[in-house]
Amino acid sequence: MRTLTKYLTFNTRNKIEFVRITDEIEKAVRESGVKEGLVLINPMHITAAVIVNDNESGLHADYKRILEQLVPYGADYRHNDSGEDNAASHIWRQLMGHQVVMAITNGKLDLGTWEQIFYCEFDGRRNKRVLVKVIGE
Amino acid sequence: MRTLTKYLTFNTRNKIEFVRITDEIEKAVRESGVKEGLVLINPMHITAAVIVNDNESGLHADYKRILEQLVPYGADYRHNDSGEDNAASHIWRQLMGHQVVMAITNGKLDLGTWEQIFYCEFDGRRNKRVLVKVIGE
Amino acid sequence: MRTLTKYLTFNTRNKIEFVRITDEIEKAVRESGVKEGLVLINPMHITAAVIVNDNESGLHADYKRILEQLVPYGADYRHNDSGEDNAASHIWRQLMGHQVVMAITNGKLDLGTWEQIFYCEFDGRRNKRVLVKVIGE
Repeated sequence: MRTLTKYLTFNTRNKIEFVRITDEIEKAVRESGVKEGLVLINPMHITAAVIVNDNESGLHADYKRILEQLVPYGADYRHNDSGEDNAASHIWRQLMGHQVVMAITNGKLDLGTWEQIFYCEFDGRRNKRVLVKVIGE
Repeated sequence: MRTLTKYLTFNTRNKIEFVRITDEIEKAVRESGVKEGLVLINPMHITAAVIVNDNESGLHADYKRILEQLVPYGADYRHNDSGEDNAASHIWRQLMGHQVVMAITNGKLDLGTWEQIFYCEFDGRRNKRVLVKVIGE
Repeated sequence: MRTLTKYLTFNTRNKIEFVRITDEIEKAVRESGVKEGLVLINPMHITAAVIVNDNESGLHADYKRILEQLVPYGADYRHNDSGEDNAASHIWRQLMGHQVVMAITNGKLDLGTWEQIFYCEFDGRRNKRVLVKVIGE
């Protein structure tokens, strides 16, 4: 059995930003030497998510609009009574799906034609980490 | 260590449809020979999801109504400016949860009484694939 | 390769409740003897979720309010025609994210500073199980 652990760091220019990370994950898979297995991609911060979806900027704008509409950033939140202002970021990351596990087949990420991996930042402009864990053989 | 990779193909009659796939996944687990491990079930298309929930048609109708209410198919989306009409399908699959990883114990899917696995099609009527990846021993 | 399977049982006092379970998962990881691997934490009931987010009671109150606002418990649901009243609970667990897979590094849960694991009960006051499956080496 082989495993690999890798920490990626992101510091986005914007509070909300979608960063394509497929190539970084492919690189981790190659480095691991795993031919058949799984890779977990998990944000280590609780106001971010990792998702798989389309590499299309219009769709990313739609995410933002829909999330803001369903869970407005400026609404009243009990979490924000503690001096924070990011309650909505915590909730958005749950609605968008938190994390993904992807398959490795023949030493490569086993992706459909349109599957791209994204780091979704909902409270950015500071260093935040994503854990990549590969296991397999 | 043992692994198995399998691709299931679905072509639903309706644009939105929920297909029970528990038996197909049980079959893949048996074929793998894995007694203890994990199985990832991941749609390879980004307008579909795999979820675990109740095998009850009323609930499936409720999903549709709620998704349409929260993220209406016919609303204005930037993604649809490119000529697509399926922006909502991309967003629904995020809200419903994208993918699942299930446990294998004693050579079988380790499911609670009511847990059933579903392929959730949000943009159907064409061939779409689901990846099943088993790892364990 | 090593694996461990453990079933945790919860019986919450309230219908909706968020229970921190990070310590129970740490314990399972120690018992498994796994140094590098993955742990799946999956509710075996379909009106509950396991999530990773902040250990902050204000945020938990916000979850409840937002879920009730998006998918009101008392609205009309086809699922409830069968005599059930918990259609919303089934849908909430999808919106919140169902399950998580976490990494094990150097024999411990590999968590960011604020990552805490929660069992999210949406239809409580009875025994309900969570499956913990560890695999690795």
